[in-house]
Amino acid sequence: MRTKAAVALEAGKPLEIMEVNLEGPKAGEVLIEVKASGVCHTDEFTRSGADPEGLFPSILGHEGAGVVLEVGDGVTTLKPGDHVIPLYTPECRQCHACLSGKTNLCTAIRGTQGQGLMPDGTTRFSMLDGTPIYHYMGCSTFANHTVMPEIALAKVRDDAPFDKICYIGCGVTTGIGAVINTAGVEIGSTAAVFGLGGIGLNVIQGLRMAGADMIIGVDLNSDKAKMARKFGMTHFVNPSELSGTVTEAIIELTKTEKDQFGGVDYSFDATGNVNVMRDALECSHRGWGVSVIIGVAPAGAEISTRPFQLVTGRVWKGTAFGGAKGRTDVPKFVDWYMDGKIDIDPMITHTMPLEDINKAIDLMHNGESIRSVILY
Amino acid sequence: MRTKAAVALEAGKPLEIMEVNLEGPKAGEVLIEVKASGVCHTDEFTRSGADPEGLFPSILGHEGAGVVLEVGDGVTTLKPGDHVIPLYTPECRQCHACLSGKTNLCTAIRGTQGQGLMPDGTTRFSMLDGTPIYHYMGCSTFANHTVMPEIALAKVRDDAPFDKICYIGCGVTTGIGAVINTAGVEIGSTAAVFGLGGIGLNVIQGLRMAGADMIIGVDLNSDKAKMARKFGMTHFVNPSELSGTVTEAIIELTKTEKDQFGGVDYSFDATGNVNVMRDALECSHRGWGVSVIIGVAPAGAEISTRPFQLVTGRVWKGTAFGGAKGRTDVPKFVDWYMDGKIDIDPMITHTMPLEDINKAIDLMHNGESIRSVILY
Repeated sequence: MRTKAAVALEAGKPLEIMEVNLEGPKAGEVLIEVKASGVCHTDEFTRSGADPEGLFPSILGHEGAGVVLEVGDGVTTLKPGDHVIPLYTPECRQCHACLSGKTNLCTAIRGTQGQGLMPDGTTRFSMLDGTPIYHYMGCSTFANHTVMPEIALAKVRDDAPFDKICYIGCGVTTGIGAVINTAGVEIGSTAAVFGLGGIGLNVIQGLRMAGADMIIGVDLNSDKAKMARKFGMTHFVNPSELSGTVTEAIIELTKTEKDQFGGVDYSFDATGNVNVMRDALECSHRGWGVSVIIGVAPAGAEISTRPFQLVTGRVWKGTAFGGAKGRTDVPKFVDWYMDGKIDIDPMITHTMPLEDINKAIDLMHNGESIRSVILY
Repeated sequence: MRTKAAVALEAGKPLEIMEVNLEGPKAGEVLIEVKASGVCHTDEFTRSGADPEGLFPSILGHEGAGVVLEVGDGVTTLKPGDHVIPLYTPECRQCHACLSGKTNLCTAIRGTQGQGLMPDGTTRFSMLDGTPIYHYMGCSTFANHTVMPEIALAKVRDDAPFDKICYIGCGVTTGIGAVINTAGVEIGSTAAVFGLGGIGLNVIQGLRMAGADMIIGVDLNSDKAKMARKFGMTHFVNPSELSGTVTEAIIELTKTEKDQFGGVDYSFDATGNVNVMRDALECSHRGWGVSVIIGVAPAGAEISTRPFQLVTGRVWKGTAFGGAKGRTDVPKFVDWYMDGKIDIDPMITHTMPLEDINKAIDLMHNGESIRSVILY
């Protein structure tokens, strides 16, 4: 069949809207009609050429929602008409990683996915002249239709709106999951969130869900504080307005009569800046502070600190897809959205047709959007 | 009173054996007759002048065992004749840290202890001319008698030999505690231990106690493998004998038919070398590896890695005194020694009188001793 897609032909070039060929699903695969797709910083990281593992031509997009149109041989858990959210972190439930019970980083199709291929080592997309087009993060939701492995699709309820729940395919789950799966925040905790973009806001609402007492947001742009307060932020720090360091400011904020040391119980980096990751670690509490890296750093960038920070009880962790097991946890997140337990609507600041996808990227660069969603 | 002590008069100079003045215990303090004291790398770190926080003149030593001679006002949990192990990490059971239940890093006397003083801001030791002599790590066990706060003494059973259980005051508890308290190793785990000195051997016996399946020891000196095998090491890697990196070698060793990735579930740095700390992290398993820093790094040295290592599920931690709560846990470690559950005797390779303490330091530098113990 043919479908319409935004194709990344070359690193650094605008995406081009065009008709492409799409082969039907092979064994274990599923054809999806994509109904909505968020535009995420990670897509832009690859489009811009900053991602050293970026492949071209490719169809980007990894934050979608859609409907099953056709299933390949052997597919047993999905049927045409099912509503699904694509998973860039699959959940095969069979591999060493899935069976460990300790991680969401399923390894079943990791090799081919990283090469922009379906599990059989080929692509389903091609240009009209036959040139193969790479898949992206196993999803490629910047196309009106896509083919994905069964193990990389979460079946969700039919009454949830595609234009909102697509965000659960990445940002919402990453932010909330970092709090509840990776950090394991307890009721009454103190926390700091560095970066109040789409991920940071979801970390904040995760902290509110987890019952944190003090939720300190940190951003260089004070305009971001208003929205963050809506999601549960209780204190705001703008590092550019401080005379001292942000670490000192957070320690000062969290000192109490009983606690002469200060520092937050949990901190989260949602910036991708390695210096900020260090600040996040070092503002966490001596003895038990846990700092979680969420942001994706530039190629080659390294984090560093004095080992004394860890020897005196801080823990440095990271999270991918919020530690969520996609097929198991994503339907639960959709339920939480439908039950009003998590909020998504105010974060979807822009919607547009696929033709305008380069505008979504501009809005992101200008800091004008939290999330833009493509509607097909 | 007067007592005999090995005094560190100046950074980098040999310790000098001399008579010193010792004031009796003030309120909340206890006078101890030290019966035995291990000589640890941390003492030497300070003696040598490498410790930027080192104070002189001081009486070093923090790994002792002894008998209570006299208690000051208000001391309720100890009486003359009690056998005790000094704790450089006290346990007041009252401060914010103790009450958190999340850390052993009691803060009750941290400020004065770091300044070489008793909690009232003065020293009990002085030279015969009246010059104050600083306390060290709140212990100063390189003296035949010392004064310590009640909260920094673990009461232990009377039938345990001082010349062995003194080692529980630091090395044994640090190594075994890193495994059971900080890492929380489960039965069937795989682990790597970098550095097969006194701490590394105790990590290894901790891993054996915890039921680890594979215990990989790493050291540049292959002579250390023999003793390590006695304590439970199952595999040995000498990085200087490899064509590739130590991380690659450990990943290769741990790969199985079911696990194409390899890597250990737990790794421990017992070297204090920041490059080794990085290797230890990076040889831990994608998705769930936990790496624990035990060694003390040189002043100013920093650890670093790509954040991707954490985002893909590795956890970087550290431990001080093995995460042990001294008054609660140290008596239990003594019981374990007396029950034959942990082994100490083969690690005490040398004993000597206080007069020969500089020989203990030479033995350490030459790698001839695992632990030297001063007998009073």
